[in-house]
Amino acid sequence: MPASIDVRPIGIVHCEVADDEVSARRRHIVSTVEVYPEFADGLDGIDAYSHLFVLFWMDRVELPPTLRWHPRGNPDLPACGAFASRGRNHPNRIGLAVVELLGFEDRFLTVKRLDAWNGTPVIDIKPYDDYDIVNEPQVPDWFAARARRRDPV
Amino acid sequence: MPASIDVRPIGIVHCEVADDEVSARRRHIVSTVEVYPEFADGLDGIDAYSHLFVLFWMDRVELPPTLRWHPRGNPDLPACGAFASRGRNHPNRIGLAVVELLGFEDRFLTVKRLDAWNGTPVIDIKPYDDYDIVNEPQVPDWFAARARRRDPV
Repeated sequence: MPASIDVRPIGIVHCEVADDEVSARRRHIVSTVEVYPEFADGLDGIDAYSHLFVLFWMDRVELPPTLRWHPRGNPDLPACGAFASRGRNHPNRIGLAVVELLGFEDRFLTVKRLDAWNGTPVIDIKPYDDYDIVNEPQVPDWFAARARRRDPV
Repeated sequence: MPASIDVRPIGIVHCEVADDEVSARRRHIVSTVEVYPEFADGLDGIDAYSHLFVLFWMDRVELPPTLRWHPRGNPDLPACGAFASRGRNHPNRIGLAVVELLGFEDRFLTVKRLDAWNGTPVIDIKPYDDYDIVNEPQVPDWFAARARRRDPV
């Protein structure tokens, strides 16, 4: 196995919503991504995109001792592997969110739908493009049932 | 700024296509993602999904000296910041691909559309779900023009 990899934070999340409310309210949350000055040149032209991927490092998440887990800690949902869920229990604590870009000024991005806690380190930003669209992706029954219970976006 | 972050490879890409042909042929490439034995439990249930995100570490990419660059090294395209392009010149060399899951056996995933070179370390796998779909994302004119020139998927 290769040696470990050294990743540098390129920014930080500012979010006024309390940590324990972020997941439930994610679709309506508006956050600010501050990019550190030495990486600000990398933002040039980003406002030509409507949506972005934000990759962040979930530095305050404690990992469970196993790689199989009930999604969202809910024993009513079937246990599954970390890689088969979008939960926080992945071996590398990388968070991935598709966000809407609402505003861009200087080195600050205003984004909607970022499910990252206040103060979370940001490790990459990538534009979302047509190749990222999957029409009717297949998901497990438990996920589909949960999604149907939610309000429309 | 927080200290740097330590990321561990959880697997590796096996791809028979030559490095310099991967980007151009990405939509038709079939690769194997091998997950290392100590992380194999994390794959349980992954075959309930049709599509995945694969995050990988582009260990052989040399970073350019600046954060503004012509996409794909093409001087005919307008220079833009690293975060405004899906190129390989991001400060953290994290690759992100949406792939189709064709097969799953033991700790090996057969996937389509992974634009990672043979031997690339994999750092995370996440299922693609309905919340990752953006209808008609806005992209720059140069990207849209390029996309239109391509064959349909």
